[in-house]
This record gives sequence, structure tokens and C-alpha cells, in this order.
Amino acid sequence: MSQEFSVVGKRLPRPDAWEKATGAARYTVDLKLPGMLVGKVLRSPYPHAKVLKIDKSEAERLPDVEAVITMEDVPRIPYSVSFRDMPEVRGGVSQHPDQYIFDDKVRYVGDAVAAVAATNKEIAEKALELIRVEYAKLPAVFDPVEAMKPRAPRIHDYAEGNIAVHISYPHSTGDVEKAFQDADYMVGDTFHTTKQIHCHLEPEAAIASFDAAGRLTVWSPCQLAHLARRELAHIFGMPVGMVRIINPHVGGSFGTRLDISAEPICIALAKKAGKPVKIEYTKEEDFGIMATATACRSNVKLGFKKDGTLAAIQMKAIAQAGGYLGRSPTVAALLLAEGLGHYRCSNTAGEVDVVYTNTVMSGAFRGFGNPPAMWGVEQVMDMAADKLGIDPVELRLKNIKKTGELGIGALPIQSSALEQCIRIGAKRIGWKEKRARKDGGVKRRGVGMAITVHSSGGYPFLIEHSNAFIKLNEDGSASLVVHPGEPGTGIWGVLSQIAAEELGLHAEDIHIVTGDTDVTMFDIGSKASRSTYIIGNAVLKAAREAKGQLLERTAKLLGVSAAELEVKDRQVYVRTTPSKRISVAEVAFDAIYNSEGECLNISGKCSFEPTTYSPTTQAVFAEVEVDTEIGEVKVLKVVIANDSGTAINPLSVEGQIEGGLSQGLGYTLREDPIIDTITGEVMTSNFETYRIPSTLDMPEVEMILVQEPDPAGPFGAKGVGEISASAIAPAISNAIYYAVGVRITKLPVTPEKILKALGKHK
Amino acid sequence: MSQEFSVVGKRLPRPDAWEKATGAARYTVDLKLPGMLVGKVLRSPYPHAKVLKIDKSEAERLPDVEAVITMEDVPRIPYSVSFRDMPEVRGGVSQHPDQYIFDDKVRYVGDAVAAVAATNKEIAEKALELIRVEYAKLPAVFDPVEAMKPRAPRIHDYAEGNIAVHISYPHSTGDVEKAFQDADYMVGDTFHTTKQIHCHLEPEAAIASFDAAGRLTVWSPCQLAHLARRELAHIFGMPVGMVRIINPHVGGSFGTRLDISAEPICIALAKKAGKPVKIEYTKEEDFGIMATATACRSNVKLGFKKDGTLAAIQMKAIAQAGGYLGRSPTVAALLLAEGLGHYRCSNTAGEVDVVYTNTVMSGAFRGFGNPPAMWGVEQVMDMAADKLGIDPVELRLKNIKKTGELGIGALPIQSSALEQCIRIGAKRIGWKEKRARKDGGVKRRGVGMAITVHSSGGYPFLIEHSNAFIKLNEDGSASLVVHPGEPGTGIWGVLSQIAAEELGLHAEDIHIVTGDTDVTMFDIGSKASRSTYIIGNAVLKAAREAKGQLLERTAKLLGVSAAELEVKDRQVYVRTTPSKRISVAEVAFDAIYNSEGECLNISGKCSFEPTTYSPTTQAVFAEVEVDTEIGEVKVLKVVIANDSGTAINPLSVEGQIEGGLSQGLGYTLREDPIIDTITGEVMTSNFETYRIPSTLDMPEVEMILVQEPDPAGPFGAKGVGEISASAIAPAISNAIYYAVGVRITKLPVTPEKILKALGKHK
Repeated sequence: MSQEFSVVGKRLPRPDAWEKATGAARYTVDLKLPGMLVGKVLRSPYPHAKVLKIDKSEAERLPDVEAVITMEDVPRIPYSVSFRDMPEVRGGVSQHPDQYIFDDKVRYVGDAVAAVAATNKEIAEKALELIRVEYAKLPAVFDPVEAMKPRAPRIHDYAEGNIAVHISYPHSTGDVEKAFQDADYMVGDTFHTTKQIHCHLEPEAAIASFDAAGRLTVWSPCQLAHLARRELAHIFGMPVGMVRIINPHVGGSFGTRLDISAEPICIALAKKAGKPVKIEYTKEEDFGIMATATACRSNVKLGFKKDGTLAAIQMKAIAQAGGYLGRSPTVAALLLAEGLGHYRCSNTAGEVDVVYTNTVMSGAFRGFGNPPAMWGVEQVMDMAADKLGIDPVELRLKNIKKTGELGIGALPIQSSALEQCIRIGAKRIGWKEKRARKDGGVKRRGVGMAITVHSSGGYPFLIEHSNAFIKLNEDGSASLVVHPGEPGTGIWGVLSQIAAEELGLHAEDIHIVTGDTDVTMFDIGSKASRSTYIIGNAVLKAAREAKGQLLERTAKLLGVSAAELEVKDRQVYVRTTPSKRISVAEVAFDAIYNSEGECLNISGKCSFEPTTYSPTTQAVFAEVEVDTEIGEVKVLKVVIANDSGTAINPLSVEGQIEGGLSQGLGYTLREDPIIDTITGEVMTSNFETYRIPSTLDMPEVEMILVQEPDPAGPFGAKGVGEISASAIAPAISNAIYYAVGVRITKLPVTPEKILKALGKHK
Repeated sequence: MSQEFSVVGKRLPRPDAWEKATGAARYTVDLKLPGMLVGKVLRSPYPHAKVLKIDKSEAERLPDVEAVITMEDVPRIPYSVSFRDMPEVRGGVSQHPDQYIFDDKVRYVGDAVAAVAATNKEIAEKALELIRVEYAKLPAVFDPVEAMKPRAPRIHDYAEGNIAVHISYPHSTGDVEKAFQDADYMVGDTFHTTKQIHCHLEPEAAIASFDAAGRLTVWSPCQLAHLARRELAHIFGMPVGMVRIINPHVGGSFGTRLDISAEPICIALAKKAGKPVKIEYTKEEDFGIMATATACRSNVKLGFKKDGTLAAIQMKAIAQAGGYLGRSPTVAALLLAEGLGHYRCSNTAGEVDVVYTNTVMSGAFRGFGNPPAMWGVEQVMDMAADKLGIDPVELRLKNIKKTGELGIGALPIQSSALEQCIRIGAKRIGWKEKRARKDGGVKRRGVGMAITVHSSGGYPFLIEHSNAFIKLNEDGSASLVVHPGEPGTGIWGVLSQIAAEELGLHAEDIHIVTGDTDVTMFDIGSKASRSTYIIGNAVLKAAREAKGQLLERTAKLLGVSAAELEVKDRQVYVRTTPSKRISVAEVAFDAIYNSEGECLNISGKCSFEPTTYSPTTQAVFAEVEVDTEIGEVKVLKVVIANDSGTAINPLSVEGQIEGGLSQGLGYTLREDPIIDTITGEVMTSNFETYRIPSTLDMPEVEMILVQEPDPAGPFGAKGVGEISASAIAPAISNAIYYAVGVRITKLPVTPEKILKALGKHK
């Protein structure tokens, strides 16, 4: 790092640590309003059916039931849980509004048909039982390839062949077909990923309350609160300003809290009952109703010159949407963008179909389209290395894009230390030594690697608009008003450190005020590794405005010019005579309580939008031991070399990398969401049947933060949340291949699949 | 009015009307936090005593008691309920910090000695009974004149003769003694006012809660939240930024909510118990513990030339503080400022002693020092008119200050339509006709008048610093972030109308966000008729900044220059071609969701402080009927001509005037707080024993809003809350004198006093 920082780069505890460690933090699910009712949803037992008739009279007669709603009681306005016009710019893909609060058709097991609000849970559940629904069952289809066949049942009228969206890679270059003909080698295969479940710990919940003047407040864990406000206003035909969204603490997201879920029905119930209503999902609803990862099947083809130059890359994919689209089109678009964009290549092309099936909807999961893209591309790279006789490390070093080259979205890469990541990672895992060894025997070890690149934020595909406001209190502390909630990423600490660095304060001097659309200025939301990079920039610029006021006021007090001043460690001082100084508190106090008629609450505000592409890069090296008799894979060690620019708080960066590794491990080896192909039911509907890794399952991890400061990031920082699960699976799979010579292309990599590949399974 | 307004001047319903009319509004007293304890205070039964010993062990042993605190458990930091250094500038009087959370001495019946927090009220009350306090009784003194005598018991060690503060009028002019010698006539008398009780309906309450990181949140009805935050931080040795104050709805103030009251003990209990604690006062505590009006005894002397020119004015007064000062020094200072400042006079002088007594503390009541000042001066004016043989209307017209003359604080008067108020009022009451008549018989009628002048805000005595922040939502509505709570004055509506007028919106498009020191920028608080005039100006200027951004964005969209544009009725249009237009919503939306890379959340913020003196003026005319047999006074009609500049919302201005009239009526004729002069107990400690007028007691009222726009007020507006009780009492007393020839100088004007004056009482 070239710059010397006071607060940035420090391994500080997070502002939310105390509250969370002591259990004092309040989540949506914890809140109670006076007179609040309990809302419950009646869900379809069938994967595909017409709703012919609903008799709710008996439920309505049950004492203490205050509202029963069906299709007749709610507005019929199409919407998307991922926001019908997620603001897109060039090449962005909007979510088609294919959903109603209730429809006359159900499209997956769990689709909502009615809801009740009652004074307690037991009565609400009893009332659900009293609602009589007459269905006409329809044939269902669960596999996207089946769903595309001519005679497959049609899930949405508008979508022929159940294809909701067909996306062509918007930045294709050259002539792929010709390039493949000219190539010396061609390698490729088809790769499958799963509808991984997010497993957030706080149950999905929402509270809706109308005030006496008809203004609506919604307590919600949705991380895109300003967009959610707009969508909810749209659904209920209200002006946006008549809706307020409050985000309490958020108990885990990983992509699922980008969407709204319980909110529309909750609002409809509150409206009907004339009282506040809370809906809290059961764990089975969390697992079975909320959007999962978007399962992709991608055919990846790479063409090479003899010398290892990547000459062509092509991807043809199918993304499984479920009964509704959710955010799957974005995932599909990013599958192409990430899969085709991270290596230098003059011939690229790709297509993806987003296909409806009678399953729970699909959406974003940490990394969006990156994990499925890497699952394919990074394995084909190893296949090519094999064929070319080039070391996988060398093959990647030859083909990766460097700073200044055009990256994803055809924008120049602001900074990339990927080469350094690869070299350092290879050294630390002992790549050369370990690749020189080939085990025999029952338990065989192998090392493998994969790389990945992930943009910080959605620019240039999305409008990446954030705002920040900061005010100095008379004790020299500051209140920082920004929107992002704290889903556990450490973002509050990061933003505090950015503001403190700029204002010359300590991180604990920054009090974060957040999560209320009435209070915060617009923010697209906390997602897509944008928070540090984009909200961080908004905070930095707002703090800079406040700092300007602070220095101007100090200049007057000290009788110098503002340009001569610097602020550090809560003191403003003359740069050339540091003993000439005054505390920030004194200046802030004098400004507020000014008896010279020059009162000022020192403050700054800023609207910010990036115009740059600053990708984070990662090289992942894994060492595994495969038991050839029982097919078990042990991940012995993982080395992750990461460049997300300056680490504002290295603890948080490492936390994100470790969290991504843990989810990547589950995704690679264990998590296998199962939908019964007869009934359409989600069989893995809780933590007993859907097993995620625990801390005890974590391998030895070495993390190397290669901190190449990014010129556009706040103090050189880039994002890190999304990238961290993307290269785990291919690195492990490549290691398995190196160990035992079999390559699994269908996640998860279970012992059964390995044994079968080894020819040992019956 | 010279200017044409769209929203300003409209009689609109208030934004809080729905919530209050339906009972949905939540006050501090309504709030519950999870795990919250009930706090109760043990109070002294003696008016003056040393606290020798407290045994709390038995109370602590009572199950479900979670904290018992006495002097040993709390910080010993002196403070003032009115804020030790209420920020003053020239001639301002600060409140001496003469109070501790608990002291080793009690100074009035009800003074706090200990407190408990328990899981419910019954247990908390039981625990109070178990605390054993050993007192050494001290002689007590209840009358300020007695208290000043040499052998009177000393209430505070520092205050010799129990005189806490001696204030000389800082703007005295000329030579009063000489002027009196040279005067043709001299008139004067001594006038007494009472410790009027505020009778707010919401009981005093506070909730304190520390979060896991030690940050304190206090829910409080205190209207000076930013100052309260600083004082509470001081008491508990915390940085200001570690304290957050939230103001829910406030159920009436009238001066009492300028102070903190239950907060310090509540915080101390929450700290000891480690849980949230709420203290809610009983009605007896509201009446007996909270600061009352400051009772004043003022000797007023006026000297006149034969032609009616006021040649000299002198005031010597005693203000009764109670056991602690509260805000009584401010009242005393304003007694001089208002009493000596509202007539043109070249020889002025005044002094006031603020004197401790063993009674509940005194503070601000609607009008501060103005009602006691007018009670004297406006009666002496009538006495002089009598002596001079000049009509009271003419005598006042001759001597009032006009626009441009130096007013209170020796600042030039920005605007005054007092002359017009007097002339219109006299006409409407039928002054000439009614003064020409003299009744005989048992029931005699009379008309009387009085005038008053009240500054808008505390400038130049106080730092009058306010801030506002406004942001436009994508539907063209705006969120206005300002601090003042809504104690029932209609201020939210007024600020909405100011913002809407400037931004070309409708009043209902403005959503007020308020009452949270974390969210709002600094504000001295809502008090002293400053909110419309000063906070209104801050709002206007913040809205102007936002409007600038709005017009700039529109200019680009319409291809014109911003200077050509105007905004009205939610539309921005070209002034010369009004058909060329676009809605505010479209511009705001385009700015937020801008796909050209120019995102902006249109917004404005402003720190504002006045440098002007814009007094509101009022002429009050009363017609009474006095029953000479039973002494009963019936107020038949009141005419109030008021100039508070442009009436932003005439409904609210009238509401303030009517409210002031009602309180003025009670103060004049009925409200008589009685303290037992043996025991020191407040005998009038609830609505049964202390009777305030109800709607049925209201006379016929005619209000005339003389709207002379003030050049410094927002859209020409000035304040109106404080003035409205000040001239009622002298107008009625002058009318009584005209009817029956007796003049009562000691409030309230009861039938007994009238009969006695008429020589009919035994």
C-alpha cells in the first residue's frame, strides 16, 4: 500500500459485534407491535393446478380470525419478487413481472392460494385448515430440458416451450465457429449445478402496518429496501412516498434477501384486517418457498492454439427458473458475462435459456452466475492444460486479462492483481512439489486450482446509485446516515472506517444510522459486492464535504488557510506546525453553539454512481485426499489469494472469504436439494435433511490478501462478498481429478458419484 | 398579502390529525420495550430536610426488584433540568446547575431521595415503602419575600438571602430617577402572578435503554432534544454521540416539556438494572413535581408627560424559583425585557431577584416573562390613561414602537402591525360605543384592552440554531427531516406547507421525519415561538437548495435554462410557455433512476440562524359582566387582533390564539395553585382540585389575523405560540375596572377578591 492510513486497514471489531454476541440484536422476526396479528399462508400441495374455487366462509367464522384473503381480496397487479424493473442500463436483464399476490393457478408446491390473520398462531393455523380449495390438477414438469420439449405442460401462457427469456451474450466477439475450426485443440463438456438453498438463520419475516392516514410501514429483511418500497407501492397502487420500509438487523442473506417474499401477503392482510400483521416463515417455508440458487446446465467449449493461447470460448446454457422467474434472468446473464469474460479471448459467444419448471423459484446466490460459470470454465481449463501438456497455473497465467484490458461489460479493468494471486497461491500451497507427486494406494492426494474474477457492483449493467449523509455531533463524533442493513458482512464497520479515515476520527466515533427509507437517501441496495466499492465511495465523498467544512471552520479559528490543515486522530492541525492544533470536538462544538452568528452543523451529503469496472480476483488452490474405496473426499488445505484492493478491515475481508469457502464446500461436496419428481415436494426442507458444513468441516485455510489499491475504489478498496464461493468447487474438482483421475461434472461431488466414476459403484 | 401563494395561507388539516383523532398516535407513555422495568421514585414528605441515612436493604431483598438507587449509586454531577448552559449570547441568562440526581438535602415536598426499578408497578411501589429514610427536618420558607429576610432558612449554600440570581435590565436607557422627577404624572403598583400549572394531558414519562455497546437511547417528551442529549451525556459522563433521544408524540407542553424531568433517574435505574426502565408520573407527580410557571411580584412604575408621552418606566421584581431554579432565571430576564421593551421610552430600568423557596421549582409557561410583565404594565397603562384623561386606546397608539424602531434586545423591529391590530380590534369590539356607557345595577358590563409584543424565538439572547434536510422521493413527494416534535401546535403542518410552497408540491406530499437525534441535524428545540420563524426558515432554505437541483435537472430535460423555470402544483414549467412542462415526479424519478450516468437524489440541507428581531403583536379587547353581589366575572366577548405576519396555516394560528386565550382565562379568573404553608404540600394536585377552563367556559371570540408579511420570516411568517396568553389577564382586569371601578393586582381575580375590593366581603 502506497498510502498511510490511520483507520483503514485496521483489524477492528464490527459495530454490530456487541449486540450480536450478547443476543441483544433485534431482527424482524423479534419485533412486536401493539395489537399485531399473526399471518399464515395457505400453500398449494400440488406442483401445477388450476384453482377452481375457494370457500373461506368457515375460516372467516372462526373467532379471533380477523382477515381471510384470497385472489378476490387483493390487487391483481403483476410483479416480481426481484422488482419488475430492477433498474438496468446497457445489457442488463430485467425481471419479467410474472407473479400475482394470488393467482388462479399454482405453479409449484408451496405456491400461495390464501392467507389468514388471527390473534395467534394456533388460530391462524386452524383457520388455514378450514379454507376449502378446489383444484384441477395439471401435469407438472420439474426438469428444464423436459420443460422445453414440445408436449411439456405450459407453466405460463406467455412462455412458449416454457422459455421465459433467451439471452445472447451481448459482448460476443469474433467468429467462434471459425475459431474452433482453426483451433489446434478443442475441449469441452456439460456441467450441472444445483438449486442450492441459502440457509439464512433468521426465518423470513415481515410486518406491515398502516397508520391512521393510510401510510404503510413495512419491517422487512429485504436488502434492496428502496427498490422494494417502489415495488410494494406499485402492487398496492400507492405513491412511493406513502410507503416506508424499515430494515432491522438481518440474520443472513447470501442472495435471498435481495428479494421480497412475505411482504405482499403481509400487507394485504394488514390492509384487510386494519391492524398490523406479522408473517414469520417456518423453516420448511424458508427452505421450500424462498428462491434458491439458479441451477444451471452449461455446455462449455474452449478452443486453443498449441502454445496455449485461448482462441475461442463458447457457452450454451439452460438456467432453471422454477415456477416464477425470481432473479434467475440476472443469474443467467451473469453466467455468460462471468464465464465468457474473465479470460482474454478474441472469439466469444454464448446463449442461455431461462426455463420455467414446477419448482420453487430460483434467484441469486452468492456469486450470481459466477459459481456455475466457473464450475464449467475452470474445469475445462484444466482439461485443456492436460491436453496441451501445459501446467494449469501456466495456462491461466498466459490467458488472464490484465489491468487496462477490457473486462466484463467491455469496460477497462481498473486494477487486477490476479497474476500475483496465482503466483503467490501456487507458492503457498506448494504447487510444484505437490503436482510432481502422484499417489498410489487407497487414499490419494491431489492439488488443484481455479481462478475467478467478480465485478464490484453491477455497473455497467445496473444503475448503481447510492447516497450518503454525515453530520458531526458536538463531541466530534459523527452520525453516518446510509441505507445498507448489516446482514453479517461487516459493512457497517467498513463504512465507519472509511468515514473515520476521511474525517480523521476513530472508527468508534462513527454512529451508523440506517435501514429506514424515510431517513436514508436513495440506495439501490446492499448486494453484488457493491457496498464497499460504491456505498463506500458515497460515504467517502459525503465525509469529504464535511471535512471541507471542518477545515474551513478550523482555518478561521486558527487563523490559517484550510489548505494548510490536516485532520488525524481527532485533531485538526497545521501540516507544517503540528503543534498548532485543535480537536475536532472543539471545532464541531464551536460550529453548533456559535455565538458569533455563524452556526453550522458540519455535514456532508453525496449522490454517487460509478463509471468504472473494478473486479476482485481470486486464485483458489485446494489439496484433497480421496478415499478410493469409499469415495470420500477430504479437503486438507485451501489456499486463497485474493485481490479486492485495499482491505478496509482485513478481518471482514477474511470473514467474507471464509464464509464463501464454507458455502463453496457445501455446494461442492454435500448440499443436494432434492425435489420429489412425482409430487414436486422439496424433500430437503430443513437442517436435518439438508446438511450444510459446520465449523468442524472447515479445512486448514490460508488466506493471502493481495492488496493492490484500486484507483476508483474508496481508499483503493473493491468488493469481496460475491467472489468467495465461485472458484471453490472447480478447484476441488480439479484436485480430485489430479488425485484419482476422474472428473465429476454434476454437483454435488458425492462419494457415490466418485465411486461410480471409479467404476466401483453398483 | 403581496405575494400569491399556492399552499401557504391554506386552512389545511394537520398531518398529525388522523393519528390523534383516531387515538393511534403513540406517546412516550404508551411505549413498551421488551424486558422493560417500571421505575418509581421515593419523594420527600418534607419541604426542607437533611437526608441523614437511607436503608434500602429491605427493598432490595424484595423479589422482582431489580434496582434500588440512592445518592451512593448515581453520579454526583450538578445539572439543571433546563440545561446548565442553555446556549446564550448577549444578555442571555444561563440556568445555574443547582441540582443532583439525588442530594443529601431535600428542598421541597416531592424532592427525590431514592428510586426503584421492578418488574411491575405494584412491586415497585411496595419497594418504595420498604426504603427507610432518616431525615433531619429543617425550617422551611415558602414565600420569596420571607425567604430574602436575614434569618430565613438557607436553601442552597451558595445563595445568600436565598437570592439565586440578581438580574439588571441589560438594555436600560436614560436616567429613570431624573425622568420620574421631571414627569407630569407617575403611576404604579405591585402586581402578583401565580405558579400556574401546565396541565399537559400526557403524563410525564421517560424510557431509558442501554444497548450492548453501552450506547444510551432515551424516549422522552422533551422538546429540546439536542440540548437534553448534551445535558444527559454530561450527567452520566458520556460522550454526546453515545446518547440518542427519541421524541414520540408529545401530549401537551406549554413550557413544561422544555425541561427534562424523569430522564436522569430513569437512566440511572436502567444503568443499575442493566435493563430498559420506564418512569411514568402519576397525575399528582405531574402537578406537584414538574416546574410550574414562575410566580412574579413586580413593582411597575410609569412616568408620563401631560400629552401622554411615556417618559420613564421602571420595574422591580421578585421571581419565585422554588427549591431549584429550573428555567425561572430566563423567565425573570424576559419579565424585564418584555415589560420594559414594548413601549417607546427613553428612560428605562429594571431589576429582578430570582429567589429560592421550599416549593416545587418554577420555569417557563407559555409567554415566559411576558404574562407577568403585561399583568403589571398593561394595568398601569390604564391607570395612567385614567389619570391623564386619555383613552387607553389612544394612549397606547401614542407610545407603541413601530417597524424600524429598536425593540427588545435593542434590535430593529422587522415588522409590526400593532397599530393596525389596536385600531381593528377597537372597532370590532365596539370600543367607542361601549366605553361611552356606564352600567349601574347589580350586573355591570365593561370593556378593557391590553396589548403585547413577543419576539419570534430567543434571538438575540440565545443561539437560535436550526437545521433542516429534505430529499425528493421518486414519486415527487419529499421527506423533510427536521427535529421539532409535535406537541399539538400544528408545527408539522406549518413546516410541510413551507416546504410544499417552495418545492411547488402539495402539503400532503411532504412527509415529516422527526424526533430522533441520530437522524436530525442540530436544533435548539421547539420553543419560544421560534419554530415557524426559525425552523421554518431552515426548511425554506433546504427546500430552496432542493428546488435548485430540481430546476437544473428539468432544464436539461426540457432544453431550457433553469432560470426560465417555475414549479407549482407538482409541475415544473417554462414560465413564458406554461404548456412546456414536466411533473416533479418525472424529474425526481429520472434523477434517481438515471441511465445516463447522472444519478442524483434531489435534496437540500441547511443550517440556519436568524440575525433579526421579528416580534408578533397582539391587541386584546375583552368585554366582561361583573356581578357586584356575588363577585362573579363573566367574560362575554374577546376580540383578538393578531399580527404574526403571514399565516402559513390560519387554522393553526387561530388554534394557538384560542389555546392561549383559554390558558389566559384560567390564569386570570380561576387557576390558583395552593401550597400548604405549614407542610409545604401542593394542595391542588390534580384536575379535581385544580380547575382549568373547558370548552364550555370559552367566551365568544373574534380573531383577526392582520397578516403584515415579515421581511425575515419564511414567506413573511412570524411565531404565535407564546404571545397568546400574555394580554388576556390585563385586558380582563382593565374591563373589570371599567365595569365596577376596582382593580385586582393579585392573580387570580376571584369573586372573593372582587367582593372584598367592592367592600362587600367579610
